[in-house]
This record gives sequence, C-alpha cells and structure tokens, in this order.
Amino acid sequence: MDDKLMLMIPGPTPVPEQALRALAKHPIGHRSKDFEAIIAEVTENLKWLHQTQSDVLMLTASGTGAMEAGIINFLSPGDRVIVGSNGKFGERWAQVAKAYSLTVDPITADWGQALDPEQFRQTLEADTNKEIKAVIVTHSETSTGVINDLETINQHVKAHGQALIIVDAVTSLGATNVPVDAWGLDVVASGSQKGFMIPPGLGFVSVSAKAWEAYKTAKLPKFYLDLGKYKKATDQNSSPFTPPVNLIFALQATLRMMKQEGLENIFKRHERQMKATRAAATAMGLKLYAPDHAAARSITAVATSDAEQIRSIVKKRFDIVMAGGQDHLKGEIFRIGHLGFVSDRDILTAIAALEAALQELGKATQVGAGVAAAAKILGES
Amino acid sequence: MDDKLMLMIPGPTPVPEQALRALAKHPIGHRSKDFEAIIAEVTENLKWLHQTQSDVLMLTASGTGAMEAGIINFLSPGDRVIVGSNGKFGERWAQVAKAYSLTVDPITADWGQALDPEQFRQTLEADTNKEIKAVIVTHSETSTGVINDLETINQHVKAHGQALIIVDAVTSLGATNVPVDAWGLDVVASGSQKGFMIPPGLGFVSVSAKAWEAYKTAKLPKFYLDLGKYKKATDQNSSPFTPPVNLIFALQATLRMMKQEGLENIFKRHERQMKATRAAATAMGLKLYAPDHAAARSITAVATSDAEQIRSIVKKRFDIVMAGGQDHLKGEIFRIGHLGFVSDRDILTAIAALEAALQELGKATQVGAGVAAAAKILGES
Repeated sequence: MDDKLMLMIPGPTPVPEQALRALAKHPIGHRSKDFEAIIAEVTENLKWLHQTQSDVLMLTASGTGAMEAGIINFLSPGDRVIVGSNGKFGERWAQVAKAYSLTVDPITADWGQALDPEQFRQTLEADTNKEIKAVIVTHSETSTGVINDLETINQHVKAHGQALIIVDAVTSLGATNVPVDAWGLDVVASGSQKGFMIPPGLGFVSVSAKAWEAYKTAKLPKFYLDLGKYKKATDQNSSPFTPPVNLIFALQATLRMMKQEGLENIFKRHERQMKATRAAATAMGLKLYAPDHAAARSITAVATSDAEQIRSIVKKRFDIVMAGGQDHLKGEIFRIGHLGFVSDRDILTAIAALEAALQELGKATQVGAGVAAAAKILGES
Repeated sequence: MDDKLMLMIPGPTPVPEQALRALAKHPIGHRSKDFEAIIAEVTENLKWLHQTQSDVLMLTASGTGAMEAGIINFLSPGDRVIVGSNGKFGERWAQVAKAYSLTVDPITADWGQALDPEQFRQTLEADTNKEIKAVIVTHSETSTGVINDLETINQHVKAHGQALIIVDAVTSLGATNVPVDAWGLDVVASGSQKGFMIPPGLGFVSVSAKAWEAYKTAKLPKFYLDLGKYKKATDQNSSPFTPPVNLIFALQATLRMMKQEGLENIFKRHERQMKATRAAATAMGLKLYAPDHAAARSITAVATSDAEQIRSIVKKRFDIVMAGGQDHLKGEIFRIGHLGFVSDRDILTAIAALEAALQELGKATQVGAGVAAAAKILGES
C-alpha cells in the first residue's frame, strides 16, 4: 500500500504535517525583510532549544558538516585533541580530526558500552602542560543506542580549564537535556532530521564565548564551514551563503511546536518512550544492546541474529522501517528510533508489529507481553 | 495581497508545482532501496544535464560549498592557480583559494565587463614550467549579468595541457550550453536554486577523469567536502552523509521536466528571454550593465541611479522581486533574473511592471515601448 510508510529510524525522523506544508511553500528571496524576520525568530528559538544565550548558527550541511565545522573552527594543525569513541560517529570525529592533521588521543569503549568518564579525568589531569586543546564527545551514539555521560565528562574538561568541549548532540538535542550554558558546553553540533522534526539538509552549531576566543587564533583552513562568517551574518538576521529557504520555513513551524510542548515535556516524552520500548523488548525476550544506565533516549538497539529478518517482516507486513546495524553490527542488531515527532501511539504500534514478527518467526515467548509492558510504562507518566 | 509573490531574482528561482508537492512528501529512509532508485535516476539525469559520462555528485551545501569542494579536492598547499575575477563570485573563489594557502594569480576585468581570454592565453603560454595547476573561472557572473567566454578560455587551458579547468556554472548550467565532455571541463559546480528549479540546499559538482587523477595526490585537508567519499557512495546509488531527501524528491521531478523540454529548448528559451528583456530595457531608455556580446542568459542587470526606487515600486505595487546590486553596486544596478522556471509570460509581466514603475517615476520615454519590444522578440522564435 502506497504512502503508508512509518519511519522508526534514528533519522530522517517523521515530519509533522505543518512542517511538510511549510516545505511546499514557494520560496522567497533570502535577502528579503520577510526572510530576515524568519531567521530572527528561528535563531531565537534555536537558542531556547539549546538553553543558551550564546550563538546558534545554521549551516546548509548534514550533521557531519556541522560537526566538522565545530571541530575545525577552533583548532590549528598539530593541536592535541581527545576523541571519545564508542561507535561509528565517535570514530568519524577521529577521522575528521586526523584529516585536518590534529593529534588524536582516543579514549575508547566497546561498541554498545558507554565511555568511562574516569579515563577522561585521568588523561586531562595528567596534562599539566595544558596541551590538550579540545575534547570531542558524541553524546548519544546513534550507531549503538548508547548515551555517554556528557555531564561528568564535561566536569573533568572544566577542571582542566584549557580544553574546549566539542559535542556531537545529533541524536540527543531535542530528546534529552543538553543545557549548553548551564554545563558550559563550548560547541554543540546537531542536524535537522532528528529532534528538530524536519527533513535533512540543515546543520546547527552552538558556539560559546570561550570557543570564539579560540577561533581567533585557530589556523585550520576553512571558508564554507567558517563559522565566523555565519556569526557575522546571523547577527544581522542573514546568512553568509544562500540558505535552504524551504527547510527554514519548516524549522520555523517545528520550533513553534516544540516551544508549545515545552522542553521538560519533550524530554519526558522521549524518556518514557525509551523506557517503554526497552521494557517491551525485554518482555518479548529480546536482548537490549545498551545497558540500562547508558540507554539513549532516542534509539533502542536490540541485539539478535534475526535482526535482518525481523526488520524485513515489519517492513513487508506493516510498512514500518526500523534501522539495521552499521558496519560490523550489520545483521547483529536492529535499531528502533523514537526520536522527534513520535507519539506514544507510534511506540505501541511499533512494538505490536515487532511482536507479530517474532510470532511469525516462532520466537514470541508470550503473546502480547511486549505491548502490555509498553502500555504499562506509557500509562505511568 | 498574500501568497502572490513573484521572484525575478537570480535565485532562489521560481519552483514548479510538482516540485513543491514532492518537497511536501513524508521523507523516506535514505538507506532504503526506494531511495537508491531515486539517486540512480537523479544521477543519470544530472549527467544528461551536464552532458557528461563522468561523475556528477550531489552535496548538501550551497553553490559556494560545491565550488569550494571543486577547488580543494584537486590541489595542494602552495599550488599556483589562476582565478578569473570580474564580479563578486570571481572574487569569492580567490578568497577560497587564499583561505587554503593556494598561490593566486588573478586575471581581472572591471565589474560589468567580460574576462579577456587573451590574458589567459598569455599567462598560460608563459608558464613553460607548468606550474599552474588550475584555472578557476566563473562562467556566468551572477553579480553583474556578464557571461565569460568559457569556451575560448578553456581552449587555452587545454593548450597548456597541465592545468585543470574549474568552473562556477551556478547561473549558467541549465540556462546555456555547458557541454562538460565536449569541452573537457574538469570540474563544474552549481546549485539547486538556479536552473535546477528547486529551492536552495543542494550543490552539484561534476568531476572529470583528469581531475580524479589530480585528486589522488591533492593534499588540502577535507572530510565533509571530500569528493572521493561522494563518488564512492554515488557509485552505489548512495551518499556518504545523510542527503536532503526532500530536496532530492523535488529534483527528481524537475529533472524529468527538463528532459521533457529538452536541452536545446531550455537554452533557446533562456536566450529568447534574455534578448527580450534586454530589448525591452533598451526600448524603455534604460542602460544595460553588461555589453551585448557578454550578456548572461540568466540575469539582466540594468544600470540606473533609480535602481532601489524601481525595485521598491515593482515590489510594492506588483509583488515582483527583482534583485539589487551587490557590494559597491548596491543602488547602482538592479538585476532581473530570467533563470529556471520562467515562462515568456513572466518576462512580459516583469517588463510591464517595470514600465509602470518608470511611468510613476516620470521616466517612461514612450509608454508601451518595453512590452512591445519584448513581445516582438518573444514572438520571433
């Protein structure tokens, strides 16, 4: 059946009707007063979402482009950086750093496990010469459904005093608390097709005053990703290069929706849906890939050798798309996205479909256990 | 009156209804078979539009991002490049080259004049040590409405034998002939909000076999803009980073429209509308900023000290947006875009509105002369 696809992947995430309608508007000139007013509103609301008084900049780029900008604008060739790596995206930021001749000091954990803040403390405390210029951390590791303890890692960075903290918040921002100013996060990067509830095409970077200080002496080459150009333009409600006008129309709509729902409610919804999904998986006899204490709010990964069969059945019978594993996890896990424009009904639906798939595979331990477990948690809060 | 805006600027250009509808579709997963089929079709049609059998890659970026990728992927620090500069965009590519520590040899012409191919010949012939690694040229200079003689400049580059030709075709591709393979253009960059008839957010770069050879030894740092990653993914009908799914839906629609119209007809339409616009401006006693022999097919710039008043009147009374001058040309010229999804009716409308504005300013030499001149030319072909 056409047009009945349901996305339960970590991105693109579902897009609300009012954002789709905004996307379909005729574009207007990006140098017009009308568009300046939209940039002003959207920028103000992005600051609200980031819980910051500092700058939040919009780039025509994917989350990777935004994160690369967040790294290269504040560093110089040879600079020593710590990169936390416990999944595909952590590994990617190490690759970016190496591509720009930074000296990478990796702190790793197995895929599916959280980074150990203690290792950050030790490495940072040992750096008495203050050679470490930045600590790069993926908050929510999309590839494994693990959330890293950014708050504690960041406390160690703050104790170091010199290093910047640069955060990949691509699947955490708009799903869980990322209080940029309260925690003093220097650079936070994200992408539009996640908690922002619009299609891919826009990247976001928040920049602290301390990061702008580092920018002044940073020597890595840049032009399109030069955040100084974006700040200068954004201060005048403009953009240095032609922005994706229609995506910004859509963003205007979803940020209004988010403000109406309120940050606390958004965070609670994601946490509730995460808990319901995990409880359901456990009730159905499935093995969760991430431990409870490090469960991402936006993605639940399930470890099973039937991953691809299960995905195939829920897609074929119910037109629900769940994500597979990436790289060496292909066929080992599947991932349920509960990020952005996802209601409790969607969770119930996805769990019911999953249960039906297990039934078809002869693996349903107790029919209805998953839906019952999810429904119970969804009803509690 | 709301929703009656008419864009006659060099970008964003008007978007056809079927592309707007495609934009408003629910996104699908970018790693799905369905999306692979779309990438395959779109890539094939992009090659058709570029008249090439080589690679055409899509980036989530503005035209500037695409052009930067087109420059940095094929060069190393210190490399000597010639940059043709006779407007805002030529100047920008020199800035990009300098930001990446390239040695820039500028060849300039006054804004409003075309670059002299003879100067390229002399500089390239004098380079007997073959130190020049690339020649960077803006084909159609959006800021002035001047088209440079790319064909002749390129012949001199070919005679040099060593240097790559890197072309900003942002406002020429899809408006006038840019036969990538026939001319042997190594790198051609463009952006979605122009001849492609969709909103901004996608950049395109075509890459020749010779350019890929240079890529192998090029040492400028890159990751997000690393075209090798895009080629590898595109060869598998995929993308290295999350692509702007909805913009690609829209692109699928407009490329189909373009194929139906046919390249020759598209080029003829743009030429006819350029001639009609210029004839009308002359008939109304207005001064054209670019000379006839170097008139861009997609933008007509008019030099008048009343530029801002005229723009203001056509906007206020008729809801038509024309572009102003950029940088030092602000207030000195206005620019009429006739690029992409523009019909003969739109030209007639814009000229009639312009004539009414001149009338209001007491500057209409002979009422109706502009519309009559435009109508005559539009009727000829």
